[in-house]
Amino acid sequence: MTPSRAEPPADAAHAADAVDAADPADLLITGCTALVHDDEEGIRFVEDASIVVRGGVIESVGRAGGTVTVSRSAAERIDARGQVALPGLINCHTHAPMVALRGVAEDLPAEKWFNVVVWPIESNLTPKDVELGARLACAEMIRGGVTCFADHYFAMDTVAAVTAESGLRAHLGEAYFSSQGPEGRQKSLEFALRHRGGADGRITTALAPHAPYTVVDADLAATAEIALEHGLPVHLHAAESRDQTDNSLARHGVTPIEVLERTGLLGLDAGVLIAHGTGIIERDLPVLERATGPVAVASAPRGYLKFAWSTTPVRALRRIGVPVGLATDGAASNNSLDVWESMALTALLQKSTEGDPRWLTSRQALHHATLQSARAVGLGERIGSLAPGRRADIILVDVTGPHTQPVHDLAATLVHSARSSDVRTTIVDGRVLMRDRELLTIDVPATVRELGERLPALVDRSHGTRIQEYDKPPE
Amino acid sequence: MTPSRAEPPADAAHAADAVDAADPADLLITGCTALVHDDEEGIRFVEDASIVVRGGVIESVGRAGGTVTVSRSAAERIDARGQVALPGLINCHTHAPMVALRGVAEDLPAEKWFNVVVWPIESNLTPKDVELGARLACAEMIRGGVTCFADHYFAMDTVAAVTAESGLRAHLGEAYFSSQGPEGRQKSLEFALRHRGGADGRITTALAPHAPYTVVDADLAATAEIALEHGLPVHLHAAESRDQTDNSLARHGVTPIEVLERTGLLGLDAGVLIAHGTGIIERDLPVLERATGPVAVASAPRGYLKFAWSTTPVRALRRIGVPVGLATDGAASNNSLDVWESMALTALLQKSTEGDPRWLTSRQALHHATLQSARAVGLGERIGSLAPGRRADIILVDVTGPHTQPVHDLAATLVHSARSSDVRTTIVDGRVLMRDRELLTIDVPATVRELGERLPALVDRSHGTRIQEYDKPPE
Repeated sequence: MTPSRAEPPADAAHAADAVDAADPADLLITGCTALVHDDEEGIRFVEDASIVVRGGVIESVGRAGGTVTVSRSAAERIDARGQVALPGLINCHTHAPMVALRGVAEDLPAEKWFNVVVWPIESNLTPKDVELGARLACAEMIRGGVTCFADHYFAMDTVAAVTAESGLRAHLGEAYFSSQGPEGRQKSLEFALRHRGGADGRITTALAPHAPYTVVDADLAATAEIALEHGLPVHLHAAESRDQTDNSLARHGVTPIEVLERTGLLGLDAGVLIAHGTGIIERDLPVLERATGPVAVASAPRGYLKFAWSTTPVRALRRIGVPVGLATDGAASNNSLDVWESMALTALLQKSTEGDPRWLTSRQALHHATLQSARAVGLGERIGSLAPGRRADIILVDVTGPHTQPVHDLAATLVHSARSSDVRTTIVDGRVLMRDRELLTIDVPATVRELGERLPALVDRSHGTRIQEYDKPPE
Repeated sequence: MTPSRAEPPADAAHAADAVDAADPADLLITGCTALVHDDEEGIRFVEDASIVVRGGVIESVGRAGGTVTVSRSAAERIDARGQVALPGLINCHTHAPMVALRGVAEDLPAEKWFNVVVWPIESNLTPKDVELGARLACAEMIRGGVTCFADHYFAMDTVAAVTAESGLRAHLGEAYFSSQGPEGRQKSLEFALRHRGGADGRITTALAPHAPYTVVDADLAATAEIALEHGLPVHLHAAESRDQTDNSLARHGVTPIEVLERTGLLGLDAGVLIAHGTGIIERDLPVLERATGPVAVASAPRGYLKFAWSTTPVRALRRIGVPVGLATDGAASNNSLDVWESMALTALLQKSTEGDPRWLTSRQALHHATLQSARAVGLGERIGSLAPGRRADIILVDVTGPHTQPVHDLAATLVHSARSSDVRTTIVDGRVLMRDRELLTIDVPATVRELGERLPALVDRSHGTRIQEYDKPPE
């Protein structure tokens, strides 16, 4: 973004207003402090800013220039004094429907979590459970300032439908294991083609093999081929933990990241999104650096603490130019879909893990939350920044509360003092999905009630089956 | 608490109601789920509970038993359906007025944080700055469900006055360094005697030497003597980081904890509260175990991550029976006074640090937040539990939000999904300080405005002085 776009002089604003009467804006936000990016992608704040939205797109962002822009006619107006406008948060890796399992498998190591609780329960899943879980998840995310989420799960047709009705943006993939046979991959492809560009363009899609430890190399290679053929990205788990990397090395002599390379997944035109990557080790860095297609990693730090895993090596990935997006994983491990918390924890854990209080400043955390997250989900040119031409995915955050005052350093206030509950208004494609904390597209009590009735059947594990085995090498 | 007190049979409730008409309750809370402790101090939840408060004290907590207790006459009633009643949170170590410096010293190592920013600024402090900072801090804490805080700062007469007006409970100590001469210690004693039992008994006091690295052994020993003489506890920083322990060993051949022992601070009738203790090492454990007076540690994990310190060795302290209370430290390092976050981070960091996902379960975290925190501030018999005879420090937490639903495990919901912003009502000594998120005792906008006017003078460091030097051994 050029400074002139971020802060148009009053004259430019005035010129833009000439077309005003004939062509009113759809939405005008006034009086906020706007987070923008400068030419070097540094975080800047424009005070007393107005944001004009038309046709789902940001038309202008800048200082009011007196009352000129403020007087712009618009179908809808929001007085945002005392609030900060940010690009909507992006949850770069989640399993939204798993909110139905929030709290069902606590204080367990990953292997027990998968084999004893989650995968047995998931063999009970019905599309209706997925629908209700996804709807509740969308409500949680909208309230937490998330405007786009990357979802990797089953029965994704229903998640696409819920995305459409909720008004959110989403990057969706139908998950599969090799244990499902070639049908799994085929179903993932059909889903991706059927829903690409859905929900008025708010849905993008990916192929979604589960992980190198549950999808054999031949299937990963076939996935890479069809991804190239159809111009689709791939979203999968890889090197989730250091244990997985060690297991992969012991069994196959290669790391999960090397598996991605040799199966062609690091050479996709549309890119690959790697969930977690806490098991990325030194020898993986040159592999990722020589990738011929876009590569990004999604980091969900809360769950890593909970499983006693190390965290994503954000600093090493930065050195080789791999964007790291913020994520929450599913609520069954993370207990929330709070990307705001992921942002704070990323800053805190990076300082702690690297032993360096100067590393991962608040501004760097905001860069991860905005442009890097947008790139991670393949939308680096469309969202992630408040700039003319970008989709109007905007959140308004109240910083007048006693826990955010006084403001000596607004970036620090946002990352270390503000909370997801300070998001007052959430906007996607120019449409207000939450206004002053009131959800406009989702009925939470009805969803909770209906989901509650289904929970006894969902969590029943007496059948003794599971959808997959953790820690079992692929055949 | 005996089970019969936690869950009185309907008959008992009925008997209690016989005195009803002649002796109405001050406050009746109905329809909540109440967190209580069983005989072994395990966390239990009583559904559809009523809590009766009279004279600032909890008279009964238990299942409604039909409509009997619900019909109890009371001056004030709160319908708390969908909410969980918990003992109010206790912030076991903070510097409340430092909210004025929130965000002023970011992304710095501890030495620079102290010497370059915070201690130069604190040489500008006036009682008015302290008053406004403390008032804003009290607003933040009440909104976050904190009902009691242990404060260790300067100009504490004003903090006592703000505590009185805010309605909070507090454990206060006037800080001093050896660099102030004997007057510092004397002033701390006079403060402790003057305010002990203040604010209708809500204020308790402590002697507050700063730390073994800023207060010489002779002064610490003199402090221990006057503490014994006056039956006062001592609240100080010690073994804040591993670096401090290493420095102490290199310079004096003893650890900071051993300094506390040899100066008599581990043998006080009224106990000693150690802030942080992240530098407590193996050889300190027998020292703490043989302490002849009560010892507790306050842990503020967020700031440890930010300074890239290790965290408090909670598991080792548990083995030797030392209670660990939850804390936030000051907002200049922690960026918030959010004890709810301290609770979640304690659970998460303990799993991570110990490499054990099964350790520090949600119920253990709630035990730290309740009974252990109450013991840490010397109020183990008066607060920290919802039980008859305890002071009525109660918070009501909404768990109907999409981010806390569904509830498979209420302890996990509270620790890992709920947020401080879910606290709807905060009650101290039976007085409602926040109702449905509205603060009843503090005017936040007026405080923010007045504080804002003073900030330029407060943060000015052109004078080139500081109140103390960090990392300089005491003379």
